[in-house]
Amino acid sequence: FTSKLPHVETSIFTEMSVMANQYQAINLSQGFPEFEPPAFLKDKINQAISEGKNQYSPSNGLPELLTEIANMVHRQYQVHLADEQKIDGLNNVTITSGATEALWVAIQTLVSPGDEVIIFDPAYDSYEPAVELAGGICRHITLDAPSYAINWAVVEKTINAKTRAIIINSPHNPTGSILSQADLSALQGLVEQYNLYVISDEVYEHMTFDGLRHESVLRYPELFKRAFVVSSFGKTFHCTGWKMGYCIAPDELTAEFRKIHQFVTFCSFTPAQIAIAQMLKAQPAHITELANFYQQKRDVLINALQESRFSLLPSKGTYFLLLDYSAISPLNDREFCQWLTKDIGVAAIPLSPFYPAEQRPAYQQNNKVIRLCFAKNDDTLLKAAEILCQL
Amino acid sequence: FTSKLPHVETSIFTEMSVMANQYQAINLSQGFPEFEPPAFLKDKINQAISEGKNQYSPSNGLPELLTEIANMVHRQYQVHLADEQKIDGLNNVTITSGATEALWVAIQTLVSPGDEVIIFDPAYDSYEPAVELAGGICRHITLDAPSYAINWAVVEKTINAKTRAIIINSPHNPTGSILSQADLSALQGLVEQYNLYVISDEVYEHMTFDGLRHESVLRYPELFKRAFVVSSFGKTFHCTGWKMGYCIAPDELTAEFRKIHQFVTFCSFTPAQIAIAQMLKAQPAHITELANFYQQKRDVLINALQESRFSLLPSKGTYFLLLDYSAISPLNDREFCQWLTKDIGVAAIPLSPFYPAEQRPAYQQNNKVIRLCFAKNDDTLLKAAEILCQL
Ligand SMILES: CSCCC(=O)C(=O)O
Ligand SMILES: CSCCC(=O)C(=O)O
Repeated sequence: FTSKLPHVETSIFTEMSVMANQYQAINLSQGFPEFEPPAFLKDKINQAISEGKNQYSPSNGLPELLTEIANMVHRQYQVHLADEQKIDGLNNVTITSGATEALWVAIQTLVSPGDEVIIFDPAYDSYEPAVELAGGICRHITLDAPSYAINWAVVEKTINAKTRAIIINSPHNPTGSILSQADLSALQGLVEQYNLYVISDEVYEHMTFDGLRHESVLRYPELFKRAFVVSSFGKTFHCTGWKMGYCIAPDELTAEFRKIHQFVTFCSFTPAQIAIAQMLKAQPAHITELANFYQQKRDVLINALQESRFSLLPSKGTYFLLLDYSAISPLNDREFCQWLTKDIGVAAIPLSPFYPAEQRPAYQQNNKVIRLCFAKNDDTLLKAAEILCQL
Repeated sequence: FTSKLPHVETSIFTEMSVMANQYQAINLSQGFPEFEPPAFLKDKINQAISEGKNQYSPSNGLPELLTEIANMVHRQYQVHLADEQKIDGLNNVTITSGATEALWVAIQTLVSPGDEVIIFDPAYDSYEPAVELAGGICRHITLDAPSYAINWAVVEKTINAKTRAIIINSPHNPTGSILSQADLSALQGLVEQYNLYVISDEVYEHMTFDGLRHESVLRYPELFKRAFVVSSFGKTFHCTGWKMGYCIAPDELTAEFRKIHQFVTFCSFTPAQIAIAQMLKAQPAHITELANFYQQKRDVLINALQESRFSLLPSKGTYFLLLDYSAISPLNDREFCQWLTKDIGVAAIPLSPFYPAEQRPAYQQNNKVIRLCFAKNDDTLLKAAEILCQL
């Protein structure tokens, strides 16, 4: 049997979470919160289940949820379509089984055999296989520590007649960097000049720190014309296991996205849709408080690691922090994470799996960086930091 | 923007359910039950949510659910792998976001550009777009009323060097026909002789009537060697909105399936996985009683339609019944269903959307057939039948 993805292995998130459980390590590897969804949200989902809302939702998503998402992005970004029309949930929002499905479908919608897609490394692991299975090819641009900033001149040089799309991700997993207004302007210029499309992975949209603003593609009407904006409630409402994602796009792109989505999953878990629609309406403050909530977590972890021999990279958003361990160990990042989990009792994610397989050996030689997830209770973070300070 | 699916429109299931709601018609169109999931199952999912099981499951599915599914198929089909080894949940079962995702991923796993896939019309609407988006081509074989039986000599003539797979679906949506032991033997012969693969859509596996046995591909070890068996709990436990599907396949095929699945949805709703694992263990009788439960529904509907001018086609499985309305109306099946919904108050599904677009006009000229879903309370079925008897 010839594999269509010969280079792909079990994801590093699965691998490290399994190992964390096996060795009972403090799990700061895979990105999921240690806290519960808000009580109101849990009540509402239980109510929807009990009251018998257990059959298919419409394929696009429940209308009341689509509308509440549109309201949320208007509150958040004062967004409108290019022609001053408002984004309309019924025409522009589609519910998916997690951001993963939204990314998958957006890529299938956009990419045809031979198309090129520009992605930035380190990159989330689903982008490249999805592009490849659509028959496309990824062109990789490497971002460098500590800022992991995009050099748009390099991007422009990478664009050619086959380039179809650029995938951006801000706030950025795994580095915690964010894109600025200048980045979005540069992107918009290229997209307009070369007739490209954008897939914008914004699942950490509500988690930017130190007063920095999240530059959603939704804030840029001319850019949004040619964009799929992907997000999810898993991170926002501490329910990564509910698999509630969505995609926002202009009318025509949404129509094509929905055609494919209906054959990929048809629809998502109905009771969660009902509950999240109510949550968005009743408790909008949960979202606006999220940045402070996570900034406090980040600072707990940063402060507790001050005395360690790790050197800390800046985290401007997401719930991730990068640590350079070159003062501590000569192991490559994968071996270091295995050792850390098995022998030290703290699970982290190595950074090399976020780079293309053929670049990994060189990357590992020059970089000694791991990722910690700080979506954890303060005492968990303090306990982990105490252990890490002993290295 | 060039559509990758120019011929695809909103699915007929969505269209008819929307129309049923709009005109407050009795909805016997889209296939979903009017009853609730078992109380035990609802209790267990609410408990899992309340107890804080709301984060990612492993991408393949929760181990306890994988194991319970393996136990279930052993109870049901006395199944084993070709080498007498038992099917093992951890190696052979993968949880998906509904059977739709399982079908999608199996097709992406198998089909490469230029491959041909044999499907039988009438066919479920997701097969062909999924094959096309993988770069493949569907070869259509038409099944004829009233038996909708497969002529395997015709299948053999359709096989050529490009043929990669055959998609079967028994019990069959929309016709309610089922495959026999002889069908499975014929299929196995062709698969072995021509080195093909099989995708077996068995979502109605627990609903066969009149003592007829469901011939799962899982009963045929040599056939199963080259098969993806797709099923779902949505139909079995009356929870179509939970989107809990799965795929059973041999080790090597499962490994490839999982590589793609992790990038399509990563995992499915965690609390439902916990609850269904408990349900399978605690109340296995729910499944064995399902055939009688639905046979009784079918018979309620059949008896209540005896005096109508529809002629009824045989339903040996699924929760669907086909009606021929040629004695009643000269309208084509789509117009007839619209009229039935708007003016008469009963929503049904036309059969022509289950045929390729270019064959639809000819099909509609020669066939006047609609599908009713009888997964409804008896009084709903009786009320609908009473209305239909007046035509
Ligand atoms: C879908 S598992 C990966 C979770 C995550 O986003 C991460 O850890 O980066
Ligand atoms: C996923 S909506 C279609 C439901 C169904 O299986 C049917 O009505 O045939």
